[in-house]
Amino acid sequence: MNDTEWMQQAMNEAAKGGWSVHPNPMVGAIIVKDGVELGRGYHHGAGKPHAEVEALHHAEQLGHDVHGASIYVTLEPCNHYGKTPPCTEALIAAGIKRCFIGTVDSDKRVRGAGIRRLTEAGIECHVGYCEQELGQLNAAFFTRTSENRPYITAKWAMTADGRTASRTGSSQWITGKEARQDVHAERARHDAIMAGTQTVLLDNPQLNVRLDGSYRQPVRIILDRHLIIPRHFHIFDTQDQSTILFTSTKDADLSAYTDLGVTVEIVEENETHTGLDIMQILSCLAEKYTFTTLYCEGGATLHGALNDLGVIDQIHLYMAPKIIGGEQARCCIGGLGKEQMSDAQAYTFETIKRLGNDVRMVMRRIPKDIRC
Amino acid sequence: MNDTEWMQQAMNEAAKGGWSVHPNPMVGAIIVKDGVELGRGYHHGAGKPHAEVEALHHAEQLGHDVHGASIYVTLEPCNHYGKTPPCTEALIAAGIKRCFIGTVDSDKRVRGAGIRRLTEAGIECHVGYCEQELGQLNAAFFTRTSENRPYITAKWAMTADGRTASRTGSSQWITGKEARQDVHAERARHDAIMAGTQTVLLDNPQLNVRLDGSYRQPVRIILDRHLIIPRHFHIFDTQDQSTILFTSTKDADLSAYTDLGVTVEIVEENETHTGLDIMQILSCLAEKYTFTTLYCEGGATLHGALNDLGVIDQIHLYMAPKIIGGEQARCCIGGLGKEQMSDAQAYTFETIKRLGNDVRMVMRRIPKDIRC
Repeated sequence: MNDTEWMQQAMNEAAKGGWSVHPNPMVGAIIVKDGVELGRGYHHGAGKPHAEVEALHHAEQLGHDVHGASIYVTLEPCNHYGKTPPCTEALIAAGIKRCFIGTVDSDKRVRGAGIRRLTEAGIECHVGYCEQELGQLNAAFFTRTSENRPYITAKWAMTADGRTASRTGSSQWITGKEARQDVHAERARHDAIMAGTQTVLLDNPQLNVRLDGSYRQPVRIILDRHLIIPRHFHIFDTQDQSTILFTSTKDADLSAYTDLGVTVEIVEENETHTGLDIMQILSCLAEKYTFTTLYCEGGATLHGALNDLGVIDQIHLYMAPKIIGGEQARCCIGGLGKEQMSDAQAYTFETIKRLGNDVRMVMRRIPKDIRC
Repeated sequence: MNDTEWMQQAMNEAAKGGWSVHPNPMVGAIIVKDGVELGRGYHHGAGKPHAEVEALHHAEQLGHDVHGASIYVTLEPCNHYGKTPPCTEALIAAGIKRCFIGTVDSDKRVRGAGIRRLTEAGIECHVGYCEQELGQLNAAFFTRTSENRPYITAKWAMTADGRTASRTGSSQWITGKEARQDVHAERARHDAIMAGTQTVLLDNPQLNVRLDGSYRQPVRIILDRHLIIPRHFHIFDTQDQSTILFTSTKDADLSAYTDLGVTVEIVEENETHTGLDIMQILSCLAEKYTFTTLYCEGGATLHGALNDLGVIDQIHLYMAPKIIGGEQARCCIGGLGKEQMSDAQAYTFETIKRLGNDVRMVMRRIPKDIRC
């Protein structure tokens, strides 16, 4: 196997971490000597050993001598004390000779520092393998750490003619049971769910996960500029699920919300179509709450604002094979929009899946290259 | 094999006729005696022998005696002299004992008359096998003969947010080369292409087939209520392709159009969003021109009118994975539209296919049962 093929093996290993590694990235490592694999490992989740340490431990368990071996690791080894000691020191101590690194770590505590430490210690470093695939694997992590905001998935359900409601506002139900069930599974996979004022006022949604079995309830992020959502609404029932309310209304008595267990964040107003400074909200979610993945169940206003800001990373589009018709029917993405078709924000279809009578299309923006 | 399984064999045979049988239906037949197949055949196209005669001929060629045999035929045998003699007489003369019929023929010259003739002659008739599949196979034929209009496929290209143009009207290009090439292949498979005034004025389209190899140019059907499309536009170049212009302007000098080789049809006005009596246009296309398949490349107005009339039989939706956004961006289906989501016109996904970066979704209305 060549270096790229070993890196692909390490990437397969990384993927075993799955969603449970959040807010950390998925990382895999393989130790190889004279073309023979000595050990492999992946990061299982926050607070657990990193992939490099797992691989060293695996090789040791198998009784292999890793002295002089190469390691293929999907992400730059860390050089700082976080919840675990730095991986660079473990690799140096083990006598690793060459380190093949998939991508540089965009986390500001690393960004090349790991590579410098290894190089200073005499370990030969080679960087840049399977970068596109690895960028996709850890898109959410890279977005949070390099763009200081969560990775945003905009989800909507629409008819074949691209409408989310009829001219009279009728929207229940666009899609069938299977698609709606799938949305619950997606909610459970995300750190937080976001919705705007109009969506909450129209539907009084619970925005929770209703599935059999055990799962995590995502935090609800509600935008309510003028604090007009009635406090008896489902989203303010915080017994089983947290809610963070973003508003620009500074002079209100917020104890009415905090008494309900709701966290209130005051942000600036600006000229996006929501009236709130969305970028301030997003960086608050990334920095203060370490939310890596945000599932936006917005209407045309919120999604329009996100699209105008260019921050929709992924689309989960549920389409029902039906036509509602009508010039005045509701659209999916409002806001200002682009002037020219050639300026439209481009995505790629990642998966297309039938769900009952409906179809789910996942579209993803190709992530930017991560460089130090 | 049981009767349904034999009928499925006959249906496979029918499908061999493909699009070349237009304006006739696809029909297949299999002759069976004591569980053994004696011959099979399908209808190859207008003016050619019907499937029953093909099957009788095939059995004869193989030296089989069909006396006392059963025939499985997907469509009721005809009992009239058209371009070929009646099949009923051929079956009676050959000594066929039992006739299994998939569906009754919705053509008003048949509709049960074939079955009556066979029964009178002592042939045992059994009707109603694989009706749904056969209805789909010959949906276009059944629509023309039972609803007196062509089978209508509405085609549009849109962004993932359901838009056909930006707020400024920019629409080129939504989809890539592969999708646009596919549209040319679809045009070649249809009897006629329809477009409304605005679409022609905006794009000055050729509405022709531009492919390598040999193909048929569909007839262009243009709606121009006030005769405002300039006569130097591509659609009025009739050297290689015919154009039928529908208008309600009675007092104009139509020789300016007929001199160009354009056929002009005067129809009534009414309150559909196009201003023209669409149902009158459609029945003219079915009756006078025997068009079985109509490919509508309309904008929101024409498609909105067709949708309001409930005559969109099939949808060819090309979707590009991009977001244009904007409250004011153009929609696919205008008109009045439905008031309640539960009243939306329902389709089923038939095929979903990737074409380059884009996706083509074919949705079809389940055809109504054909009964005498």
